[in-house]
Amino acid sequence: MAALTFELQASGLQGSKARAGKIRTDHGEILTPIFMPVGTVGSVKAVTQQQLKQDINAQIILGNTYHLYLRPGIEVLEAAGGLHRFNGWDRPILTDSGGYQVFSLAANRKIKEEGVMFQSHIDGSRHLFTPEYVMDIQRAIGADIIMAFDECPPYPSDYSYARKSMDLTHRWLNRCFEQLARTEDKYGYTQNLFPIVQGSTYKDLRKASCEFVAEKNAVGNAIGGLSVGEPEEMMYEFTELCAENLPADKPRYLMGVGTPWNILEGIDRGIDMFDCVMPTRNGRNGMLFTTQGLVNIRNKKWAADFSPIDPGLPNEMSQYYTKAYLRHLFVADEILGLQLASIQNLSFYLWLVTTARGHILAGDFSSWKQEMIPILKQRL
Amino acid sequence: MAALTFELQASGLQGSKARAGKIRTDHGEILTPIFMPVGTVGSVKAVTQQQLKQDINAQIILGNTYHLYLRPGIEVLEAAGGLHRFNGWDRPILTDSGGYQVFSLAANRKIKEEGVMFQSHIDGSRHLFTPEYVMDIQRAIGADIIMAFDECPPYPSDYSYARKSMDLTHRWLNRCFEQLARTEDKYGYTQNLFPIVQGSTYKDLRKASCEFVAEKNAVGNAIGGLSVGEPEEMMYEFTELCAENLPADKPRYLMGVGTPWNILEGIDRGIDMFDCVMPTRNGRNGMLFTTQGLVNIRNKKWAADFSPIDPGLPNEMSQYYTKAYLRHLFVADEILGLQLASIQNLSFYLWLVTTARGHILAGDFSSWKQEMIPILKQRL
Ligand SMILES: [Zn+2]
Ligand SMILES: [Zn+2]
Repeated sequence: MAALTFELQASGLQGSKARAGKIRTDHGEILTPIFMPVGTVGSVKAVTQQQLKQDINAQIILGNTYHLYLRPGIEVLEAAGGLHRFNGWDRPILTDSGGYQVFSLAANRKIKEEGVMFQSHIDGSRHLFTPEYVMDIQRAIGADIIMAFDECPPYPSDYSYARKSMDLTHRWLNRCFEQLARTEDKYGYTQNLFPIVQGSTYKDLRKASCEFVAEKNAVGNAIGGLSVGEPEEMMYEFTELCAENLPADKPRYLMGVGTPWNILEGIDRGIDMFDCVMPTRNGRNGMLFTTQGLVNIRNKKWAADFSPIDPGLPNEMSQYYTKAYLRHLFVADEILGLQLASIQNLSFYLWLVTTARGHILAGDFSSWKQEMIPILKQRL
Repeated sequence: MAALTFELQASGLQGSKARAGKIRTDHGEILTPIFMPVGTVGSVKAVTQQQLKQDINAQIILGNTYHLYLRPGIEVLEAAGGLHRFNGWDRPILTDSGGYQVFSLAANRKIKEEGVMFQSHIDGSRHLFTPEYVMDIQRAIGADIIMAFDECPPYPSDYSYARKSMDLTHRWLNRCFEQLARTEDKYGYTQNLFPIVQGSTYKDLRKASCEFVAEKNAVGNAIGGLSVGEPEEMMYEFTELCAENLPADKPRYLMGVGTPWNILEGIDRGIDMFDCVMPTRNGRNGMLFTTQGLVNIRNKKWAADFSPIDPGLPNEMSQYYTKAYLRHLFVADEILGLQLASIQNLSFYLWLVTTARGHILAGDFSSWKQEMIPILKQRL
């Protein structure tokens, strides 16, 4: 079918670099800026695909290549006809390359020019991920947007390591594009490769990496290696630098970011796509993001608070259930608590980017952002 | 408002004692025979109230007095305006008396004429449940149907213990009715007390208990102390004996039963209401009840079976998701697996009693039951 396209609908208003756009994929449209819920092994934790659509308004979800490769494995995914068929999510899917998980989860990993040897964190079995193999795996998973295989250096990294790592990522990127050109879409729709900018926290490396990536003329570009422990201001600075050095007519994806205010600051610097496990992980720990601020729902103060979980959200669940009930579910260790908190946090994240988009189109994003950030950060 | 009524719509066809009926409460109607999902602490585990209505078609759910008394506690429930308001379930609710949990969960319990002293299984705190206090607690919870405070003797019990225990349960029953008459409905709708037949596995005691209970002329009656470890045939025998000795014009509730075939055998003997934790508990362990038999969804044989979880059920979830996907969710320890398995099993139980009702009304329940039981018992 057709390669991903991006239509820029608004940008550069009120001195902000924030943009509103529309991505088209063979599984439908994505209005940007967008937040993508993380569905690690083909399930956004504690949420049904029906709830993702009806309650959360998710437009695209993520899958993790490393996890899906180990379980259920590519044989099962191929037999199913790809991840969309396997999990019943018929809107766009993005898969990461597995690089990040190999470095953070797997044991005994060894990086070589060829690729990365590692042992599964589940059963200790040995595997080799090469750029070519990771493309093949992502072909089998069948996501609409697939990511290049990269090395994500830790923070801090010294200059010489960061430079070597970036060069390796660039050579791997060439191999990813070559392998993709040699192979066909498996399920009849187009899979779109996004390269990833690296370069740690060195401006010249980041600029060089943006230049290398931009020359690939991909349909979209990603910024990796941020939000890995560096100070927030540094993350903003490098986000801005990368956004400025990546094509304006292609979507820009800031990987693994972040808090609600991180996302607003990213949007302000020209980022279009975000993902993070924070809304679901924090939700399962009883930490809620709401339109009125941060809520620790286990706190005794909510025991008899019969107001809705979040009066400011339009979704049914956050209106229907009360803070007192949700607190009770957490105190009593009920699974329903995990479900409602995950729905609340993801609904909030989708509300945040959708509302940001409305303000970008209306031309008042900057002033809205200034107003919102202190509200979103306050502890209720 | 109005006391619970029961309209008998069909009975005694094809030599069976199976009945179809309609219970009316201030929170709506219940078509019988009915299965009631167990919502221990005000949540049917892993299922939202929306899913209980839309996917499962639950008409009434249970709450456990013991659990709700400990958490969230009656103060919070009263402040909320009762359990219906607290958990957002606006259809009928039944609460047990806490007797069963006090005997099975609590520590250091001491039974006296006055009531039962026990220590909370959560924090070791000491509490005294008397028949009067249990009525007050159930007033505060606000269920439509509330249960008498009884002692449920273990199986086996010797005759003299069973007799003493039954006599105590009968004296407590008198005190329950007296306390109920002294107190008012708290939330404007009528709360209906069901007495409980005991008598262990002794026919003369069971008959005496049925007689004692029947004389109370309650709007519905329950059979307790079965499905506590006795052989299945013995449970059927005593179910039949109790049903025969309880009023025909009032609903009969067989407490804590059971497997799908237990329920069909109970219906065949004149039972109208059932509850059991089995569908939710087994579901969370990956054991599915389906219209085609029993499924251990963790089994390797389902890894690439892309047929619906249960092709014979009308509900969306069991059609939408596949056995392969559900197996994957269990193998990967995903919360969504617990949700989908719970929805499957509860949907199946509601389908079972609804279909049984259809056959009772059509007059061919007995032959349908004979056909179904071997199917329901087979391991797929
Ligand atoms: Zn993150
Ligand atoms: Zn049971």
